[in-house]
Amino acid sequence: MGELRKDPLTGRQVIIAAGRAERPRPLGHGGAEATEPCPFCAGHEAETPPEVWSDRPAGSPADRPGWNVRVVPNKYPALTRDGSGKESQASGVHEVIIESPAHLTQIGQFSTEQFNTILHAYRSRLAALRNDHRLRYALVYKNQGADAGATLPHVHSQLLALPFLPESVATELQGAKQFFAANQRCYFCALMDGTVEDGGRYVTANQDFAALCPDTPRFAFETWILPKIHWSCFDQCHDSALANLAQIMREVLRRLGRIQDNPPFNYFIHTLPLGEAAAPHYHWHIEILPQIGRAAGFEWGTGVHINAVAPEHAAQRLRDAVI
Amino acid sequence: MGELRKDPLTGRQVIIAAGRAERPRPLGHGGAEATEPCPFCAGHEAETPPEVWSDRPAGSPADRPGWNVRVVPNKYPALTRDGSGKESQASGVHEVIIESPAHLTQIGQFSTEQFNTILHAYRSRLAALRNDHRLRYALVYKNQGADAGATLPHVHSQLLALPFLPESVATELQGAKQFFAANQRCYFCALMDGTVEDGGRYVTANQDFAALCPDTPRFAFETWILPKIHWSCFDQCHDSALANLAQIMREVLRRLGRIQDNPPFNYFIHTLPLGEAAAPHYHWHIEILPQIGRAAGFEWGTGVHINAVAPEHAAQRLRDAVI
Repeated sequence: MGELRKDPLTGRQVIIAAGRAERPRPLGHGGAEATEPCPFCAGHEAETPPEVWSDRPAGSPADRPGWNVRVVPNKYPALTRDGSGKESQASGVHEVIIESPAHLTQIGQFSTEQFNTILHAYRSRLAALRNDHRLRYALVYKNQGADAGATLPHVHSQLLALPFLPESVATELQGAKQFFAANQRCYFCALMDGTVEDGGRYVTANQDFAALCPDTPRFAFETWILPKIHWSCFDQCHDSALANLAQIMREVLRRLGRIQDNPPFNYFIHTLPLGEAAAPHYHWHIEILPQIGRAAGFEWGTGVHINAVAPEHAAQRLRDAVI
Repeated sequence: MGELRKDPLTGRQVIIAAGRAERPRPLGHGGAEATEPCPFCAGHEAETPPEVWSDRPAGSPADRPGWNVRVVPNKYPALTRDGSGKESQASGVHEVIIESPAHLTQIGQFSTEQFNTILHAYRSRLAALRNDHRLRYALVYKNQGADAGATLPHVHSQLLALPFLPESVATELQGAKQFFAANQRCYFCALMDGTVEDGGRYVTANQDFAALCPDTPRFAFETWILPKIHWSCFDQCHDSALANLAQIMREVLRRLGRIQDNPPFNYFIHTLPLGEAAAPHYHWHIEILPQIGRAAGFEWGTGVHINAVAPEHAAQRLRDAVI
């Protein structure tokens, strides 16, 4: 279930996941948008695999209504635990974080409390996978809107844990190590200092977190959220930091929603590989990628992104947005 | 006009092109689809910058109707020739190849003859830029359909010439050099031999070209077209080879159109950097990337693509398509 292939020329990694061809078609393509009732709604728990985590009243039975956030295995996994033992056979874990029992489609409209519960789900699942030695890296990510690749409209994120270190994570880790060796400083710590000093790419901040537009954004209004103190692993976030993260994520997504009418977006958490202890060179962070324009032939052919909105201008617009 | 930025951590290259924010909005987003008349239609030549190439009757005046294929500078360029001389200022050339005087939207429906004229436009423009020493690489690419990033529906391709070697081209060239050093053979020549031998990923062929599904396709039904003999530079293609390329491109796009109802797609030509002479390790080719699924949070966060259709199955489906 899921075969990892690596291009001998470029090192490009591809997971061939034949079972996923049967999943619902993308939104807006005559697919799942019209399909009601939705399998993620409260009352339809039997239509998903059994839950592996939920936020629900103590003592209430699993896979029944009453939950606020619910995590279930993905019904159409890119990878599963049932590896054949062949090296190319990629066994992994693919889960869905259902972010609300109601059929809502815009996470930006949620309360800070609901955001906080979603972040607790991320932390619990990442912590649970930390010591599974078959796994090497876990990515928590979200696709909101058909133009950001969502196949079901009901708000949800995903967690995909891999038995290998993915290409762009490896590149980022390597770069961070080199930066630390050259500067005796974490790159991300330096990034925040520089950004706050010059004011140009800074969006907002609270006690524990800062949001900024990176210097080389792939997409218009791309925004990163970073802990202000040096912190390597997302799953070591304590409760009060998670509450502040919920506040800033909600604020940034609401600001973004004001730039255009709730644009589609992706976000993901970059954290240390599973099982690794805190490192002086690496700083976990969240990258939010609005999908207002889109990657096309030029981007696929060159690896270079063309972005029509300078990050200094994007940050200004985001700071000025009235929420 | 266009600033190149490079991420110090990952080497990621981004072109900040502020002027492009004013171009027409993507198709299907309340943008250009509804805008008639179209600036690419015959009779509207005055709405584009003056043509730099056209296929039209000998002696007929430029920028008037009568052309079959017309090349004009992009009105909303990612890069222009007017660099300020600053190193980060990326000066380049951005052109549009208008593929038909009529308001058509599907290149797959064209005659082989029209395809051939389009390929002549590609070759002429690449040859014209070959000796411009300010430029390092030129990518010819096409976006067909809103879901492949097209902003105007009228059939067109683009050429973007850059003053630097883009990231994924550099990676491919480097891999090709290493493969040649290790095997005393061109990787792409070996790829075709292997594919034709095992039959599994072979799609079609004619006298000069072969089409195959690569072993590590990023997208479902990704198909590459390669010259059968070792050839480094697209712009050194002679007329009879271009005619055979027109035949096989049309055939592959028509086969692809049968898999789903004319899916959106990107294609691009990978050829040697401008000004470089033929090389034993590099073989030009065209990569066609259907956009049936799409890159989302997982792909952007990891650099790894999940593909639900194995290339062996894709090739079988494409071979079996009745056209």
